[in-house]
Amino acid sequence: MSGNRAVAYKEPGVVEIIDTEYPTFELKDGPGVNPANVGRKVPHGVILRTVTTNICGSDQHMVRGRTTAPKNLVLGHEITGEVVEVGPDVEFIKVGDIVSVPFNISCGRCRNCKERKTGICLNVNPDRPGSAYGYVDMGGWVGGQAEYVLVPYADWNLLRFPDRDQALEKIMDLTMLSDIFPTGFHGAVTAGVGVGSTVYVAGAGPVGIAAAVGAQLLGAAVVIVGDMNEERLAQARSFGCETVNVSQGDPKDQIEQILGVPEVDSGIDAVGFEARGHGKDASHEAPATVLNSLMDITTAGGALGIPGLYVTGDPGGIDEAAKHGSLSLSLGTGWAKSLSFTTGQCPVMKYNRQLMMAILHDKVQIAKAVNAKAIPLEDAPRGYAEFDAGAATKFVLNPNGYVKA
Amino acid sequence: MSGNRAVAYKEPGVVEIIDTEYPTFELKDGPGVNPANVGRKVPHGVILRTVTTNICGSDQHMVRGRTTAPKNLVLGHEITGEVVEVGPDVEFIKVGDIVSVPFNISCGRCRNCKERKTGICLNVNPDRPGSAYGYVDMGGWVGGQAEYVLVPYADWNLLRFPDRDQALEKIMDLTMLSDIFPTGFHGAVTAGVGVGSTVYVAGAGPVGIAAAVGAQLLGAAVVIVGDMNEERLAQARSFGCETVNVSQGDPKDQIEQILGVPEVDSGIDAVGFEARGHGKDASHEAPATVLNSLMDITTAGGALGIPGLYVTGDPGGIDEAAKHGSLSLSLGTGWAKSLSFTTGQCPVMKYNRQLMMAILHDKVQIAKAVNAKAIPLEDAPRGYAEFDAGAATKFVLNPNGYVKA
Amino acid sequence: MSGNRAVAYKEPGVVEIIDTEYPTFELKDGPGVNPANVGRKVPHGVILRTVTTNICGSDQHMVRGRTTAPKNLVLGHEITGEVVEVGPDVEFIKVGDIVSVPFNISCGRCRNCKERKTGICLNVNPDRPGSAYGYVDMGGWVGGQAEYVLVPYADWNLLRFPDRDQALEKIMDLTMLSDIFPTGFHGAVTAGVGVGSTVYVAGAGPVGIAAAVGAQLLGAAVVIVGDMNEERLAQARSFGCETVNVSQGDPKDQIEQILGVPEVDSGIDAVGFEARGHGKDASHEAPATVLNSLMDITTAGGALGIPGLYVTGDPGGIDEAAKHGSLSLSLGTGWAKSLSFTTGQCPVMKYNRQLMMAILHDKVQIAKAVNAKAIPLEDAPRGYAEFDAGAATKFVLNPNGYVKA
Amino acid sequence: MSGNRAVAYKEPGVVEIIDTEYPTFELKDGPGVNPANVGRKVPHGVILRTVTTNICGSDQHMVRGRTTAPKNLVLGHEITGEVVEVGPDVEFIKVGDIVSVPFNISCGRCRNCKERKTGICLNVNPDRPGSAYGYVDMGGWVGGQAEYVLVPYADWNLLRFPDRDQALEKIMDLTMLSDIFPTGFHGAVTAGVGVGSTVYVAGAGPVGIAAAVGAQLLGAAVVIVGDMNEERLAQARSFGCETVNVSQGDPKDQIEQILGVPEVDSGIDAVGFEARGHGKDASHEAPATVLNSLMDITTAGGALGIPGLYVTGDPGGIDEAAKHGSLSLSLGTGWAKSLSFTTGQCPVMKYNRQLMMAILHDKVQIAKAVNAKAIPLEDAPRGYAEFDAGAATKFVLNPNGYVKA
Repeated sequence: MSGNRAVAYKEPGVVEIIDTEYPTFELKDGPGVNPANVGRKVPHGVILRTVTTNICGSDQHMVRGRTTAPKNLVLGHEITGEVVEVGPDVEFIKVGDIVSVPFNISCGRCRNCKERKTGICLNVNPDRPGSAYGYVDMGGWVGGQAEYVLVPYADWNLLRFPDRDQALEKIMDLTMLSDIFPTGFHGAVTAGVGVGSTVYVAGAGPVGIAAAVGAQLLGAAVVIVGDMNEERLAQARSFGCETVNVSQGDPKDQIEQILGVPEVDSGIDAVGFEARGHGKDASHEAPATVLNSLMDITTAGGALGIPGLYVTGDPGGIDEAAKHGSLSLSLGTGWAKSLSFTTGQCPVMKYNRQLMMAILHDKVQIAKAVNAKAIPLEDAPRGYAEFDAGAATKFVLNPNGYVKA
Repeated sequence: MSGNRAVAYKEPGVVEIIDTEYPTFELKDGPGVNPANVGRKVPHGVILRTVTTNICGSDQHMVRGRTTAPKNLVLGHEITGEVVEVGPDVEFIKVGDIVSVPFNISCGRCRNCKERKTGICLNVNPDRPGSAYGYVDMGGWVGGQAEYVLVPYADWNLLRFPDRDQALEKIMDLTMLSDIFPTGFHGAVTAGVGVGSTVYVAGAGPVGIAAAVGAQLLGAAVVIVGDMNEERLAQARSFGCETVNVSQGDPKDQIEQILGVPEVDSGIDAVGFEARGHGKDASHEAPATVLNSLMDITTAGGALGIPGLYVTGDPGGIDEAAKHGSLSLSLGTGWAKSLSFTTGQCPVMKYNRQLMMAILHDKVQIAKAVNAKAIPLEDAPRGYAEFDAGAATKFVLNPNGYVKA
Repeated sequence: MSGNRAVAYKEPGVVEIIDTEYPTFELKDGPGVNPANVGRKVPHGVILRTVTTNICGSDQHMVRGRTTAPKNLVLGHEITGEVVEVGPDVEFIKVGDIVSVPFNISCGRCRNCKERKTGICLNVNPDRPGSAYGYVDMGGWVGGQAEYVLVPYADWNLLRFPDRDQALEKIMDLTMLSDIFPTGFHGAVTAGVGVGSTVYVAGAGPVGIAAAVGAQLLGAAVVIVGDMNEERLAQARSFGCETVNVSQGDPKDQIEQILGVPEVDSGIDAVGFEARGHGKDASHEAPATVLNSLMDITTAGGALGIPGLYVTGDPGGIDEAAKHGSLSLSLGTGWAKSLSFTTGQCPVMKYNRQLMMAILHDKVQIAKAVNAKAIPLEDAPRGYAEFDAGAATKFVLNPNGYVKA
Repeated sequence: MSGNRAVAYKEPGVVEIIDTEYPTFELKDGPGVNPANVGRKVPHGVILRTVTTNICGSDQHMVRGRTTAPKNLVLGHEITGEVVEVGPDVEFIKVGDIVSVPFNISCGRCRNCKERKTGICLNVNPDRPGSAYGYVDMGGWVGGQAEYVLVPYADWNLLRFPDRDQALEKIMDLTMLSDIFPTGFHGAVTAGVGVGSTVYVAGAGPVGIAAAVGAQLLGAAVVIVGDMNEERLAQARSFGCETVNVSQGDPKDQIEQILGVPEVDSGIDAVGFEARGHGKDASHEAPATVLNSLMDITTAGGALGIPGLYVTGDPGGIDEAAKHGSLSLSLGTGWAKSLSFTTGQCPVMKYNRQLMMAILHDKVQIAKAVNAKAIPLEDAPRGYAEFDAGAATKFVLNPNGYVKA
């Protein structure tokens, strides 16, 4: 137990497997750890042997060099693990439990946690509400793309799977509970999706696909997914979605061909700030494209769920406004239609238990929908590269061999 | 009954009292009437003798020449009246009833009306969902700043006051039910105001004041109102609000002085697209100022209610983006804080009955809060001018002498 | 157009096909018509040629003689039709439209209708809030198990199917929108069913089956249906439900065998006041059995949806309390578990559009689930008898031959 | 610190002040401690020096001998205190904090706590979900009518007041946050009270008064309180309620005199299972009286909030049904009106912060409304006796002299 192999960010475009220390019940100094968090005691934590840990699209923002992530930052906020040590204050989680870790780190003791707003916990990130493992400017909690990882406030944070064997059997689905399945589902819920809704999801990456699956689970009548990547669109069609290739122009016309009307009840932004234009503008970044398009195609009285990430500062932005996180939004269009908008991190704990139930009782096949593929930890660099190149695949790292071929 | 004196828009800065025709149960051609609505039969309508009809801030957008309103458009969408004729299809409303007219015109028969979304009725405006009396691009329904006015779908639209004498006694309060009281209240509701909330209202005009009153009625712990007009801020203080003069700088610091923290639970935009900057920028228009400021001062997990009007096109906008209704919004700030946003016309019918109950049982003094002042119809030009100059007064036209001195 | 063949109640256990008058735009005197409704003008109505009209379990209460229904009452509140005449006040519904009729009659003009509470409309039944076609003590609106039927307030009440051919193709599913599908769905919604829920539905008649289908559509993880009728239970299993035969004892033990715990998140009562006991008590009526059982098996913090009918007076009740609609309920059990309870008629209009969308886009097969079977109007007596004998079939009358073999 | 004076139940009708042990961070054996809880370690707890601790109506059920409470059970679940020791696992609560203790004990780590259902925590009471201090069959957590008390899961459970001096100044109001103010407020919320509602509260004891205050805070137009105790009714009138003396007959007629209609929008049961009849039946217990009356007087579509306690077994019940917690309820009446019902303990944590804000900002005077009166700990027997005799007073014990005369 002396070491801990982990995936680290090195420089723009480069991740590597490095040797780091095996975790203890303390947050030690290291790359990106907020000074106010250095030395923080974690008696309420557990140490997990990682069962699975997924590569996420939001990791790519860092790897592409669009953030101030420091060298050697250990990545990874999508974590499922087996409990191998419990801190002295842990009461209900036991060694041997197989657990899902919400990517939001939260304390379970502040006003926001008590109100189920675990995405903006007040006690884990000295800089601002909200935190995550292995992410720049999120307090410095070490990432989980590693053999072992420390999870604080374990009784509160962890979702225990009821049966070990069943959990390992369905692990490729259950691994999506740490982030993308709840995140996509939250997008659908906040977009007002219900039984009979018509839905447009912008973006066919894993979060977009999860949003589409979530919309179906909520009873949507029609789910339309838009992207420029034909492979990803094919993935969306594989489980019953309609698709729109936005490189061929604004989605409005294509939506009208599908539905008979050019509008949907609910719009979901699963793209975020690195959006590109539509049609002939598809080759360059245009960060407001998705939101303006969603305002245009969402019906009056509808809602927009915005799980796609928008940032407060983007050094790689296309212009001054973008660098400061400002977007040129046609708010007048939205106002005339009485639209509502919900932004922010998904509070995973609000949804993960119920989505686990849907998986365990075979009501949903999220792994198949996102084309989940397990790869060894050592192959993480290849996974990052292929994902960044647009593979219609969700890469699941398998650091300890729990996932069988 | 051969004539009908009414307030009409003449040209930028000019309204006049004109003679128009007494209404019939048909929408005849006239200034601003959508061709598709010309000749529309209104057997479901009633003709009201106007009891009161208020001058609204959104009328000012037209009068200032910031829209394409045509000459001789009869203004007025805040109407309370006595029923003097009922159309053949009206079943429950009777001659002699004193009624409040929601400014949103709605049919009570479309999907949106059935879902209580009367601000975006599908059947009254051939151009797009939603309509209002006496307003440009809203279908052409004739305004109510007149002696008489036609109200369609009367059984659905009208709120009947239970007792005539009581209604006339409290008429200066009840007249606010047609628009600003529900509109402000909707701002507070959609900003998530509840018992114990801290609230910031941007704008101390009548809608802002109504939002502040609405927030108090919902049990808010502290309501802070910001504006640059000291007279209006004094009005806000008169019923227990804290105030911030935004000409002295960003409201954040002043909020911290009041609350001990620089944030509120709920933010309400009662200004809209004609916003000006804060502090040293207070002298010129800066349409995104209010929304960006609200994202800054609303606490993580909070909500923004946006009753202030944003338009799809503003020929008088300060730059190309503004002319097209685009705003440069710091959405990244809002996203990091998981904020939600609700825009659009208030669906008055959702709130007017309950607010009427609060008025009739003396739980709220809205007339006093907005400093309501009744003036003769003939004095409307003066009322428009004084209101535009920043008077801390809500002008109530009294075309038929119902309001006694 | 001189006549109108219809199904009428004759005496306990007997229904017959009778000749009645073709409807006009007036509610004329007749069996069960409330005197205050006699002569009521219906210019807002339409006359439908019946496409389908279903036999409902709540009709059986009348036919079994458990009510004061008068001789020759024309039955039928589950109606789908083609518009053949429109009253002079009808504006949006057109001759030739194929429409679904919510069984609740409502005016679209009272406080409750404006609040979407169409099951308790204040203007259609002089006796009390709420009404229905062809039902005792509901105002006297003539039933729809007939060739033709009058529907009042047509613009408000009717749900128009978007395409005639598509509607007739899916008519066996769409016919369930008038009552049992929304009613069962309402049971699920008010029982708090959501994605991942575990659900117990008491009763495998058509409403119970519809509740189970509704729970699945809402994303339930496990739906368990209880009944004593093995044929009906087999029907529930045919679309993926678990089942419990309550003649073998309390459902609690069987639920534990299925779920591993003896409790569910949500309980739905699709039986109502004619409930019988469980286990050895299964042979006699015990009206509180279902509700007491549901309080026992619903988990703390759960909810009960109660679409099953409970009456204020039941002349055929087993004892004095039952005759007056009183039940001996273990409310202490419910209180200790913080349960909530929702009773009453389903407000169909709140759900029928969205359920129509789910049907038209093939997200649900309600006809197959309830084993819908079309029979000629003349076979209604046989349908009533077989249904009363426990057939696992939903009988759909086909008075005008729209339904092809 | 060797001792701890406390109020203990001795036998029916008798409470005494006894000497008990000063608490440690362990739940030791004692009267009423569940064997499974004996020896439970509480490193997450704090020890409070009691600032105030109130006598509650639900304590009276025990003192009257209506439960199986054991001799020497230390009473008291309404606790406000100063932190004097913190357990090793406590991170955010500090010595010296003045805190309010929700009467519901909850762990902050189970499914129900994560869903804000702290009244039915799964980890604190081995018998069933939900717990409270000093209460029979609630796990055995020692009551707080004492000089010192142990509070488990302190970071989760405690509400810290922002300023010590301010807290002590408003202590007579803030002391109501531990139970009755949230409990009454929850009754109002679950009864659907909102701006403009008409409300009937059955029972003018402290919870009924708190429900009335809560309804006013939520914006109710009219609050009517019913009881048989004129002194308590006078207390209700003192802050603007209307009142009904139910010893003079059914409240329906009196409500009609007040409102003009015999119905209210919302009904609140603040009486529970020890209800007596109305009018001529007022002299004897009739446990279903209040609920049946509320179903009668609540308008169709309304809701009933039921904070009043109903038990699963009542050895002192008036008949066999009552002894087993069964009530003869006119559910048919409720069903015909589409009523909904919410039962159970108030989850205090859902409301206490916002109600604290309302108190600290002078939006509500709960102490005055319930006529709070501080008495020495030694006077508790007199307080119990006077309260049981119907005093219109809320007794607040003052064991350590924090409350100044």
